[in-house]
Amino acid sequence: MRAKIRHLDGFRWDGVPVLNYKEDGTHFKTISRQILFEGGPKLGSELRYFEIEPGGHSTLERHDHLHSVMIIRGSGHCLVGDEIHALAVNDLIYVPSMTWHQFRATGEEPLGFLCLVNRDRDRPERPDEKSAAELKALPQVGEFIRL
Amino acid sequence: MRAKIRHLDGFRWDGVPVLNYKEDGTHFKTISRQILFEGGPKLGSELRYFEIEPGGHSTLERHDHLHSVMIIRGSGHCLVGDEIHALAVNDLIYVPSMTWHQFRATGEEPLGFLCLVNRDRDRPERPDEKSAAELKALPQVGEFIRL
Repeated sequence: MRAKIRHLDGFRWDGVPVLNYKEDGTHFKTISRQILFEGGPKLGSELRYFEIEPGGHSTLERHDHLHSVMIIRGSGHCLVGDEIHALAVNDLIYVPSMTWHQFRATGEEPLGFLCLVNRDRDRPERPDEKSAAELKALPQVGEFIRL
Repeated sequence: MRAKIRHLDGFRWDGVPVLNYKEDGTHFKTISRQILFEGGPKLGSELRYFEIEPGGHSTLERHDHLHSVMIIRGSGHCLVGDEIHALAVNDLIYVPSMTWHQFRATGEEPLGFLCLVNRDRDRPERPDEKSAAELKALPQVGEFIRL
């Protein structure tokens, strides 16, 4: 890896590819992924930058591994467990193990955030019918989530 | 850990203490440390925020573990190996294993950066007399470093 990766306009980095959020699916909307620091033998974690366009959202999911998130662009909201949080630049979000979460760019600007994860991690799980029904039944949560 | 930690003015976070950079020493100057995400059984890494006041600098050191750095405030310069890099907001800096490095707030604004490291890591090493002499003998590096 080069010692310095220059930041370009518009939350892009010199030589860092802009990737699809996930390979396929209809459970997310207008979200991109850039891997800023890849894990390796001497770094057990990865730092990624995700950006959601206005109106878009990440997948509603949970997993055993943790998410440590820092907002670095725009604004929006997220669900963590059964709470919805307003998000502004430099806010920190901690998603515990096996906790339902979803990020949405709810305003007129994109929502961009760093997400720190272990390099070795389990695959996310989406809500089954029962969990989806339970989430939908929660007053604020039910209106917030996008499945 | 709380799900949301609110960002306050001036690169402070609600409930996150502002710590000394290191316990003691004269090999650094006007630099503070905040631990944004602490490692734990399910996260093998830590995310810290360091801020250097104008004219200040981090310790010139090297270690086996990697540093993955993202500038989020102000500007400055850093040494990585035998190269000096100008730093602007959102630039990424990668410090390989056993590579001399030092960050300096060379301008009239502070230099603030995120630094991602493994939770389990070796202690940094400072240059001995021989290494210091070798570094001082390098044209640009010799003028840049602060011992």
